Amino acid sequence: MQPEDCLEYLQTDNVTWFDVQGLGTEDILNNIGKVFNLHRLLLENVVNVPQRPKCEDYSDQLLIISQVVRINPAKNGFETEQVSLLVGEKYMITFQEDASQDPFKEIKSQICQKQGNIRSFGIDYLAYRVIDCVIESYFPVLEHYEDRIELLEEKIISSPSRKDLEQIYKIRRELLALRRLIWPLRDMLGILTRTGYGKINMDVQIYFRDCYDHVIQLLEITESYRELASSLMEVYLSAISNKVNDVMKLLTIISTIFIPLTFIAGLYGMNFEYMPELKSHWGYFICLGVMVLIALYLVFFFWRKGWFKSFY
Amino acid sequence: MQPEDCLEYLQTDNVTWFDVQGLGTEDILNNIGKVFNLHRLLLENVVNVPQRPKCEDYSDQLLIISQVVRINPAKNGFETEQVSLLVGEKYMITFQEDASQDPFKEIKSQICQKQGNIRSFGIDYLAYRVIDCVIESYFPVLEHYEDRIELLEEKIISSPSRKDLEQIYKIRRELLALRRLIWPLRDMLGILTRTGYGKINMDVQIYFRDCYDHVIQLLEITESYRELASSLMEVYLSAISNKVNDVMKLLTIISTIFIPLTFIAGLYGMNFEYMPELKSHWGYFICLGVMVLIALYLVFFFWRKGWFKSFY
Amino acid sequence: MQPEDCLEYLQTDNVTWFDVQGLGTEDILNNIGKVFNLHRLLLENVVNVPQRPKCEDYSDQLLIISQVVRINPAKNGFETEQVSLLVGEKYMITFQEDASQDPFKEIKSQICQKQGNIRSFGIDYLAYRVIDCVIESYFPVLEHYEDRIELLEEKIISSPSRKDLEQIYKIRRELLALRRLIWPLRDMLGILTRTGYGKINMDVQIYFRDCYDHVIQLLEITESYRELASSLMEVYLSAISNKVNDVMKLLTIISTIFIPLTFIAGLYGMNFEYMPELKSHWGYFICLGVMVLIALYLVFFFWRKGWFKSFY
Amino acid sequence: MQPEDCLEYLQTDNVTWFDVQGLGTEDILNNIGKVFNLHRLLLENVVNVPQRPKCEDYSDQLLIISQVVRINPAKNGFETEQVSLLVGEKYMITFQEDASQDPFKEIKSQICQKQGNIRSFGIDYLAYRVIDCVIESYFPVLEHYEDRIELLEEKIISSPSRKDLEQIYKIRRELLALRRLIWPLRDMLGILTRTGYGKINMDVQIYFRDCYDHVIQLLEITESYRELASSLMEVYLSAISNKVNDVMKLLTIISTIFIPLTFIAGLYGMNFEYMPELKSHWGYFICLGVMVLIALYLVFFFWRKGWFKSFY
Amino acid sequence: MQPEDCLEYLQTDNVTWFDVQGLGTEDILNNIGKVFNLHRLLLENVVNVPQRPKCEDYSDQLLIISQVVRINPAKNGFETEQVSLLVGEKYMITFQEDASQDPFKEIKSQICQKQGNIRSFGIDYLAYRVIDCVIESYFPVLEHYEDRIELLEEKIISSPSRKDLEQIYKIRRELLALRRLIWPLRDMLGILTRTGYGKINMDVQIYFRDCYDHVIQLLEITESYRELASSLMEVYLSAISNKVNDVMKLLTIISTIFIPLTFIAGLYGMNFEYMPELKSHWGYFICLGVMVLIALYLVFFFWRKGWFKSFY
Repeated sequence: MQPEDCLEYLQTDNVTWFDVQGLGTEDILNNIGKVFNLHRLLLENVVNVPQRPKCEDYSDQLLIISQVVRINPAKNGFETEQVSLLVGEKYMITFQEDASQDPFKEIKSQICQKQGNIRSFGIDYLAYRVIDCVIESYFPVLEHYEDRIELLEEKIISSPSRKDLEQIYKIRRELLALRRLIWPLRDMLGILTRTGYGKINMDVQIYFRDCYDHVIQLLEITESYRELASSLMEVYLSAISNKVNDVMKLLTIISTIFIPLTFIAGLYGMNFEYMPELKSHWGYFICLGVMVLIALYLVFFFWRKGWFKSFY
Repeated sequence: MQPEDCLEYLQTDNVTWFDVQGLGTEDILNNIGKVFNLHRLLLENVVNVPQRPKCEDYSDQLLIISQVVRINPAKNGFETEQVSLLVGEKYMITFQEDASQDPFKEIKSQICQKQGNIRSFGIDYLAYRVIDCVIESYFPVLEHYEDRIELLEEKIISSPSRKDLEQIYKIRRELLALRRLIWPLRDMLGILTRTGYGKINMDVQIYFRDCYDHVIQLLEITESYRELASSLMEVYLSAISNKVNDVMKLLTIISTIFIPLTFIAGLYGMNFEYMPELKSHWGYFICLGVMVLIALYLVFFFWRKGWFKSFY
Repeated sequence: MQPEDCLEYLQTDNVTWFDVQGLGTEDILNNIGKVFNLHRLLLENVVNVPQRPKCEDYSDQLLIISQVVRINPAKNGFETEQVSLLVGEKYMITFQEDASQDPFKEIKSQICQKQGNIRSFGIDYLAYRVIDCVIESYFPVLEHYEDRIELLEEKIISSPSRKDLEQIYKIRRELLALRRLIWPLRDMLGILTRTGYGKINMDVQIYFRDCYDHVIQLLEITESYRELASSLMEVYLSAISNKVNDVMKLLTIISTIFIPLTFIAGLYGMNFEYMPELKSHWGYFICLGVMVLIALYLVFFFWRKGWFKSFY
Repeated sequence: MQPEDCLEYLQTDNVTWFDVQGLGTEDILNNIGKVFNLHRLLLENVVNVPQRPKCEDYSDQLLIISQVVRINPAKNGFETEQVSLLVGEKYMITFQEDASQDPFKEIKSQICQKQGNIRSFGIDYLAYRVIDCVIESYFPVLEHYEDRIELLEEKIISSPSRKDLEQIYKIRRELLALRRLIWPLRDMLGILTRTGYGKINMDVQIYFRDCYDHVIQLLEITESYRELASSLMEVYLSAISNKVNDVMKLLTIISTIFIPLTFIAGLYGMNFEYMPELKSHWGYFICLGVMVLIALYLVFFFWRKGWFKSFY
Repeated sequence: MQPEDCLEYLQTDNVTWFDVQGLGTEDILNNIGKVFNLHRLLLENVVNVPQRPKCEDYSDQLLIISQVVRINPAKNGFETEQVSLLVGEKYMITFQEDASQDPFKEIKSQICQKQGNIRSFGIDYLAYRVIDCVIESYFPVLEHYEDRIELLEEKIISSPSRKDLEQIYKIRRELLALRRLIWPLRDMLGILTRTGYGKINMDVQIYFRDCYDHVIQLLEITESYRELASSLMEVYLSAISNKVNDVMKLLTIISTIFIPLTFIAGLYGMNFEYMPELKSHWGYFICLGVMVLIALYLVFFFWRKGWFKSFY
């Protein structure tokens, strides 16, 4: 379908939703710009991805820019896709950065099957559904991070490794990036909920308020995870110190037991001409006995201190 | 009792409290929705647990969503139960997530026994009592964490272990979760106290202000405990370093005393043909004497440095 | 004096100050409540100690709840005493939790001796004097913590011990508790200064502003001390690391010097049949000489690295 | 061109842009001051570099002070150049600190080539273009830091060195400096966007809003990088602890294996007269065999603990 | 000059500046209080040093309390001097705590020499000059701390010592104290700039705005330095860990090389009757050769790991 073909839809009384997938070529966008009479800056915002989520009022239209997120298993992180909404009086245009995945499949099928109350409301309710869809995309991503943090925590406390350090750092970096996406979302929905720019009816505003609550929740969750990830770093440091301590203990146990024994052995390895003990028939066995006693005492000493526990 | 049976109560002039325990089946909820003329979004908020505590004005009704907390000894943490209040003009409906435990037992018995002034006030005072009940449920939970933090602190300073690290992390995570429950409670009560949504009388608002004070106190306590838990992590790290230091000291004492002695023993174990000391009759005893002197000096040296103190 | 006896004072034109020490029995309080016509919630706030400092307007009366603090040398910390003010038109009632100590001795003696300008002002000035007294009680407590932090700092840098760790943690916990007392004081005085609830004259309000400045100062001091205590923990950790380092150095010096020497001694303790050095007349002395040279070189090596400095 | 020559341009109806490069001598500035009737404080702000970015309204003129940043490869950091804008009714004067580099080359060439819509708008649009240019200069600088942080992270986790510590500290210091430049930019643009001081048309204000969004983005990026740099310090500390641990492990493996063996060797180096094992023909080989078994067992013990992994 | 002598100056139309150096005795102050009709609280604020910087409006007069700071080389820190301004309609009184140093020398000489425009403005401009002087006194102090932080940083990374730890702590404490002085200065100037209390003309208010900008800059610098000092502590901890690591490496190198060699020497020091190697003519030399090979291999092993680098 060419942009010019939209004109006939615009002249009907119905609500129309145009969905531009993959941003298209410059030509197409310019045509869309002409057909819908769009400000130059508006189109730039749509095309130059990624933009900060925001909401701008161009008198005739309302431009809402947002980022859909989804887990990318390949790079064990998340990826974003910019989704821009242009809400006019009787039409809504959505621009999706990536044509290969459609986050709005469900809404579309509801419309086609005339399910739910989506057809009984106006263009503002449709915009709400799309934004709600965007916001809902954050929850599975955050859950993904919750899982990773929990897994890491168990792993670190039992056996911290270099890779875990890298993981913690990566999680922190990505949560920071997520927060940078959610903050402006909050501002945007805050404004939409309060003013609605005169383009959202009172009975739909209640839905936007619901969205706003979800974004606040997203923010709080992100902050909590960030704090958890940050305290995980301290847990890691403590766990490493614990390991150093265990290694030290092993070294100390071995050294403390054998160094005195070796000294005794060295003592009777001396070549002095007159060393009475050496002549004694039982000297050797008494010497061995003393060594065993010393060793037993030290083993008991360390056992009482609980040093052996760390090696199980 | 079926939802339809409520109708007759609604037609009287009395204040009526309906208590729905265990959320019920979808059918029952839909019926309730029809009987009380509830917004679809309202019912969704009630059913989809857990929701963020909030307060929403649906012109006819006021929906208050909150979370009751209680200690769960089994998992050594807390659990939440969503309690939703629907305050109409002459009736209040409470929805409890969990039918097995009733946090409002005390209020109900007061009503039944016509104790206190609960019957002399209107529906807004009843709502206050229920919310107060919710808020009071947080105090024992926080006390539980105070106890745990105090126990941990003593334990960590005297003998830090891997399990303590896990405990600190767990406490931090749970306090974060608690804070996420209390923050929205504060917002909710702040709004209720200031505006009352035109549904709360001036003489009852003074009670809500009291609730608000308690929530502020809850928040401050939670923040304090979070800071304490966070500084406990540093205490842990320091305590581990202390232990490493003690282990090192033991190793160093043993090594510093015996390594020179072993060297001396090794010296006279050499097989050079001409070593005048070896021929001397008293050589062995002089050698032993020197070793004892060295050992005594070193023991004195470490004792003066106070290194033995750590082993008592 | 019984509560009922207050009535005659209330009927005069003079300003009257009633001071209830030790909260009294429930009977007495109920009587007071009846005599002065107090709200049930007001009395509860007065009796259920400790309450968060706050200021509440009960149309006829102004209730100000605050906490006096004082150093308790026995537990090396501070203790609080709740002081509630009830400011009516011509009377003020103060409720002190603890009858054994009177923080307002000085004010009372000034009134008795007709000193200063306390008698020329109204009830609001009297209230200011009492609140000022409460606020001034925080300064010596904070100074106490300043002293402790300074002492600890010197102690920790020179010789950190397990007890210091406990001390830092204790100071942090207590400063957190202090802050939790001062914050609401700030809110309370902020409101009193701005509105005065219509119960404070303009010429007395200037005194409350002075109080407010002092509370701000208290807050800033508390925050500074909290930061200092928090950085003290890092100082502690660094000092412990320093000590570990010193212990390590000692071990390394001893090991590095004696391990090679012991090896050489071991070398000539071998029993090979043909070892030419052993036959040489000067072999033993040359061997000793080489050992001394190695030892001297290593001592020089460590001295140049400055490792001996740590042991003075 | 002398300042006096500007007068004739001012008398035309066209928009005129004067660009003062290199701040010039005091004489020239005084002349400019006289020609354009500038406040003494205004000139001082322009000349005393560096000033905090700000925006001041001198009734006739609007003074905007900002800092252009650029990477300085020589010192591996960034450098700033103060750019002051003086926006009058029909003219704009820009003062550049450094004459050798012109950040506005592109704008000028667009004007000369009559490209874009720069000539169709008034003086306010020209000011927007200049400010936009200033803001855009921050993005490559921030990207430079992102690259450095990423490189450092990889380097630190694999092999932390003293130089990396210096680098982290340097990055933190420079990001702090950057933030100190961007914060006031935000305040400035916030005010310009909201009020425009009556000097910016509504249709140009939309462009300033775009600028404001970019500055917010800059701030968020800077904060993220600061947090990353700060967590990099913790990564560094953990990596060092890891290395200490590895060194300890090597020492412990070697000691634990050889100390017992050396003891056994010392045992049979004793010179007791009656040591039955020594007489045995196979004694030596049995002894060697026991040593090998002990060594193998210990190697297996460490291998099972995974201690060898750290040395690959 | 006695306070009473001021009266004649007050009756002229000129602007008069009284400068009270060293606070004076109580008598003098009381006299000043009578002559200028000052509120009791005002005088208390002036005399009880140190006060928090603030600005108070006593209808007839404006009281501005501020603290001049200067470096005290003796204690390697800064000291404060309280300067209070009392701005009346036609006169200004300044109270300096310390008579020995006059921070306003320059202003006075300008007035005497009739330089600049100080005489053409009113009393508000004079007040601005004095406050500007106060604010300017902070910049050299902050530069002093910048220098110290930079010196410390270099010192710590190359060779951290116990004294540096003390220094960092001291700098943090002093920067906290500085911030506590600058914050209220900001509040004060914010109020002065916005309202001027009806005592500052519009054309002078522009100068106060300039002051305000400087205070904001001071605050930002202080915060930056505080963060730098705080990250310096982490640098210190890391540097100490680095040093521990180096010490460990030295110990490990020595031990790892000599312990196996000593074992071999011990092996051939055993007294078994039948040890074939001992009989071999070349046994000793082969044994030495093996030892050298082992030592060379280990040296190579450590060299490849880069462990020797730390000792240069």
